[in-house]
Amino acid sequence: MADNMIRVFGHTNPDTDSISCAITMANLQNQLGREAQSFRLGEINKETQYALNTFDLKEPELLSNIDSNTNVIMVDNNEFSQSLPGIENAHIQMVVDHHRLNLQTAEPVYCIAEPVGCASTIMYKLYKQDDVSITPKMAGIMLSAIISDTLMFKSPTCTEQDKITAERLAKIAGINLYDYGYKLLEAGTDISNFTGLEIINVDSKDFKHNNLKLTISQINSSNLEDVFKRKTEIEQAIEQRIQEENIDLFVFLATDILEANSKAIVLGNRIDIFERAFNTKLISNTTLLKGMVSRKKQILPAIIETLEQKIRI
Amino acid sequence: MADNMIRVFGHTNPDTDSISCAITMANLQNQLGREAQSFRLGEINKETQYALNTFDLKEPELLSNIDSNTNVIMVDNNEFSQSLPGIENAHIQMVVDHHRLNLQTAEPVYCIAEPVGCASTIMYKLYKQDDVSITPKMAGIMLSAIISDTLMFKSPTCTEQDKITAERLAKIAGINLYDYGYKLLEAGTDISNFTGLEIINVDSKDFKHNNLKLTISQINSSNLEDVFKRKTEIEQAIEQRIQEENIDLFVFLATDILEANSKAIVLGNRIDIFERAFNTKLISNTTLLKGMVSRKKQILPAIIETLEQKIRI
Repeated sequence: MADNMIRVFGHTNPDTDSISCAITMANLQNQLGREAQSFRLGEINKETQYALNTFDLKEPELLSNIDSNTNVIMVDNNEFSQSLPGIENAHIQMVVDHHRLNLQTAEPVYCIAEPVGCASTIMYKLYKQDDVSITPKMAGIMLSAIISDTLMFKSPTCTEQDKITAERLAKIAGINLYDYGYKLLEAGTDISNFTGLEIINVDSKDFKHNNLKLTISQINSSNLEDVFKRKTEIEQAIEQRIQEENIDLFVFLATDILEANSKAIVLGNRIDIFERAFNTKLISNTTLLKGMVSRKKQILPAIIETLEQKIRI
Repeated sequence: MADNMIRVFGHTNPDTDSISCAITMANLQNQLGREAQSFRLGEINKETQYALNTFDLKEPELLSNIDSNTNVIMVDNNEFSQSLPGIENAHIQMVVDHHRLNLQTAEPVYCIAEPVGCASTIMYKLYKQDDVSITPKMAGIMLSAIISDTLMFKSPTCTEQDKITAERLAKIAGINLYDYGYKLLEAGTDISNFTGLEIINVDSKDFKHNNLKLTISQINSSNLEDVFKRKTEIEQAIEQRIQEENIDLFVFLATDILEANSKAIVLGNRIDIFERAFNTKLISNTTLLKGMVSRKKQILPAIIETLEQKIRI
């Protein structure tokens, strides 16, 4: 990797936004006359595959290691812990993200972070700023990312800017936003050939707070019954992870993309924290969380607040 | 401070760029209909005072403490260690900077960082983006910051963007860039009523690297003889700081703003590192460093490289 090429990639366990940003940023750099290529740091999920197929885009190559001093652009991500090992020795040229900031660099870098629902919303702005025209393909993948990250504008993380950008992109891509959007989200909900463990690992994040080991796993669904038919398998998989990783509280959320509710399966020796956080009583390990769709804005903050209250008492 | 007002400020020991960014960002927010006020985290230096007087601007109020959840915009700075105590509990709404990134936030924030010579160059861009017109006063203080940070475009940190922006701002401000620029830099060189300690503390930064305590202090001058008339006093002040703070290597730079050279006074038990870094031999504690004007791009990297080489041997 002793070349000048800029490697562009998002976070590990990539979602549609990470893939969209990698593709559209590499393309933007190419249009500006710079050598750049998009990469992925893991397998493409079914939703992203549907988007790539729809807009006839190839999936980025897998990147599994990085040499020091490689030129890099980080997209949809700025934390070394969610990137490749060795990223701290790469030559980071630019960061485009919409998550909290947790970044140390040795040199000044180009960084654009905005509290919008989707990093591809920022990518759209960069194309406009640099006066580079957006092809229907690029518009399609950016649009897919916004639909995915904002759960069709229903997530509390969604801003007016995300919505306006999505509408403009749908026009460029030449598709009906809502028709395509629900098909895209639906594509991500197909768990028919997944094992229980695969289901809970589709989108699983671990947190540690005051010695409590917490895992929140989430899956989108257009029909919660399809997920709950697999309840026993899912519970077994959760119990397995709890045993193997000493998890205190495991929250699995099946999020209804049409109704914007989530139904939870909760296990572990600290389910009391979950019950207090959401003022609910689990019945055979489950409960319905009305209007709850966002792990980062709704579920995690409620649990952390409960943990902090306990400390104060 | 339980109000909604956004407090805008740069780093402690403020320079012209920190004051310019605070004033121009607060003004930009006001123009966009938001309640905001500029502040300073320390005394105004003579150069900045000259700029404020020229463009008939009031100095920002001193801010010495900050309540939690106060709305804040950080400019020309993103490291908590160079800001107010308690900044980590403030509600950071935005960051505009041109230094290395070293920031952790709990929530996503608006952050624009670019590797340009001056943060006011980014401020100019934000006015353009937001379609807010730049008054001659605002142009004047931004221009002053660019002249100051880039040492009239002579610093290796200066980019083409800084230069073009400065030229545009000079037109808006209605002044001759070079005439004004040298007067501004000259104003910052007046050390006639300073004590030795005040001279070395005008712009002093501490670094720690592999247990070596290093201080690099810098002052601008249009006549190095004026500074070196005070050599004995300066050396005494350096010795005092070395004693009190257990500094291993103290580098004092008097930078000739016309010739773009620096003359150094170097003291401490590790002057060997300095001599190796610059392949020079100190004569009565001094040496001339030709073409060296930037602490962050030239002096510090050369010393760090020497320290790293030593480890490898």
